[in-house]
Amino acid sequence: MSNQLKNDRFLRALLRQPVDMTPVWMMRQAGRYLPEYRATREKAGDFITLCQTPELACEVTLQPLARYPLDAAILFSDILTIPDAMGLGLELIESVGPRFKKPVGSKAEIENLPMPDPEDDLGYVMDAVRLIRKELDNSVPLIGFAGSPWTLATYMIEGGSSRDFSKIKTLLYSEPETLHLLLGHVATAVANYLNGQIHAGAQAIMIFDTWGGALSGPAYREFSLAYMQQIQDKLDREYEGDRIPIILFSKGAGLWIEDIAATGCDAMGIDWSQDLGEVRAKVGANVALQGNMDPAVLRASKAAIRSEVGRILASYGEGSGHVFNLGHGITPDIDPKHAGVFIDSVHELSKPYHTH
Amino acid sequence: MSNQLKNDRFLRALLRQPVDMTPVWMMRQAGRYLPEYRATREKAGDFITLCQTPELACEVTLQPLARYPLDAAILFSDILTIPDAMGLGLELIESVGPRFKKPVGSKAEIENLPMPDPEDDLGYVMDAVRLIRKELDNSVPLIGFAGSPWTLATYMIEGGSSRDFSKIKTLLYSEPETLHLLLGHVATAVANYLNGQIHAGAQAIMIFDTWGGALSGPAYREFSLAYMQQIQDKLDREYEGDRIPIILFSKGAGLWIEDIAATGCDAMGIDWSQDLGEVRAKVGANVALQGNMDPAVLRASKAAIRSEVGRILASYGEGSGHVFNLGHGITPDIDPKHAGVFIDSVHELSKPYHTH
Repeated sequence: MSNQLKNDRFLRALLRQPVDMTPVWMMRQAGRYLPEYRATREKAGDFITLCQTPELACEVTLQPLARYPLDAAILFSDILTIPDAMGLGLELIESVGPRFKKPVGSKAEIENLPMPDPEDDLGYVMDAVRLIRKELDNSVPLIGFAGSPWTLATYMIEGGSSRDFSKIKTLLYSEPETLHLLLGHVATAVANYLNGQIHAGAQAIMIFDTWGGALSGPAYREFSLAYMQQIQDKLDREYEGDRIPIILFSKGAGLWIEDIAATGCDAMGIDWSQDLGEVRAKVGANVALQGNMDPAVLRASKAAIRSEVGRILASYGEGSGHVFNLGHGITPDIDPKHAGVFIDSVHELSKPYHTH
Repeated sequence: MSNQLKNDRFLRALLRQPVDMTPVWMMRQAGRYLPEYRATREKAGDFITLCQTPELACEVTLQPLARYPLDAAILFSDILTIPDAMGLGLELIESVGPRFKKPVGSKAEIENLPMPDPEDDLGYVMDAVRLIRKELDNSVPLIGFAGSPWTLATYMIEGGSSRDFSKIKTLLYSEPETLHLLLGHVATAVANYLNGQIHAGAQAIMIFDTWGGALSGPAYREFSLAYMQQIQDKLDREYEGDRIPIILFSKGAGLWIEDIAATGCDAMGIDWSQDLGEVRAKVGANVALQGNMDPAVLRASKAAIRSEVGRILASYGEGSGHVFNLGHGITPDIDPKHAGVFIDSVHELSKPYHTH
């Protein structure tokens, strides 16, 4: 499929193959900063309905691509679809965030969790992937995604967002085997779900480990990275003749980049605390890097945005292996024109780094 | 003064001089996890009154020392005393956190900020230091502290706690000179304040940079570390014949430890994401290290606490230069007995590392 793509810059950069300019997309690019997104969300009524209606999920996925020359689309969905499919009862409460009606905690509750089937229980996601692929018509590749088992488990045990992860860390240090039971179950569910997305048409996969950075080094390796490795080992990394690159992104994991690279992933998400040039020197021979501008820069002047894009391109240096992105999702307060300046600056300023 | 101390293990470890066992204290050791603290706070009426009444601040400072064989006391106060003394109007709102009635943002507002005098405007802190030193009667050393200019500026500009620091980062990327103006003013105020504490009797100084880790590397160096360096260069590092060690603690700054060590500080606070042994290998010849157990471990079993203490001691290895601490403040939900197990475990398990 990918060799029919009109723009395969993103996939080529993930595989460290030559490109004409650095590809760029933005985490949460289909989001509230776009007035057309807010209109569709209003039409849907609420966020969960928007995720669960393939036609609407497809519509918002494509919106930023109509505005900007982005090099990839990313499935519009939420990382919490999997625990929801396990029966935890997802609610999204305005200005509070996600909440589960039935969080888990005991060994018995964990043992009783069902194993969702991608097509039977999460068919709305698979349908959205198929529909988006059809509508994209091979213009740019589609990224599928899921949350990491550790990150999903924080919501499943805390019952929602958390500041200090008190319940899950108590479990981690008091009953590590119970937590391992949960993480193993979630890892299998995530692997099935991502393979479902690949079979439905996702051309690259990203695993979001938003909360891995809240752990100590040994705990990160044992309770977060090990389960991303399990998933990766189960994924169809070749599908219908195409290579499906995998991007792992643990936010706040700058101290553990060698460990992440050693999993054999194709690329790593890099947050803005890290220096791309230093990361490349350490692991760039083995993996591509995706990142890493602080999304706060998009609130500054257009000149400041260009300058920061230039600094980051220079830090990575010449050649392929870099997918430009923000270090975290774009926030709702950003002026869409500033996002446009960001994307254009990446393309324009990166050309001199790809002349060989 | 320090040579009259009954227990100078903490100061010796900060200066990397031999000790009989690893000294230990806990960030926020005078805090809500202690029933006697909650009683004094109720007597005071509110948190700000507790900070501003030297007798009560002294009382709570000493409470954990009556319970546990801690190797240091830390002044009970708040990092926001300085912006409050600049007229921003500190309020503490239950379950929301600190708020300023008059946050700053414009160049004119920043230029009009007064420069607090430690004795005239923050005399209640200086009085607390003098009273605590008297009551401690040279049993253990007293740590004075302040927030870093960057961290204080986040509260002064955002008006309170923040998730993504949108206002201050907009200023940083749009009007860096305005932010530098504020940071320079705050740095002078912090230096004056800390020298005031030293003259009143503080025997070591810690600078808390709670939010430095929210920045990119170049922004961290320019907007946070540079101002901690300014302060350090102005501090009286010898006072009445005693060396006053300085500890810098930027949470989430694990990628920049060489930069922090290069400031010439005596010691660095280390959060739990870092491996003490690795940090020691990089910078341990020049600075002492303070940390770094995840406070969440205190919620686990006593056996788990001992095991984690043992792991961290082994990671640092033999010899002096390590002050044991948590990687962040102890939380209100901790059983005081568990804190006791932590402290005793450090003393007991560290002896074999100090036999030479």
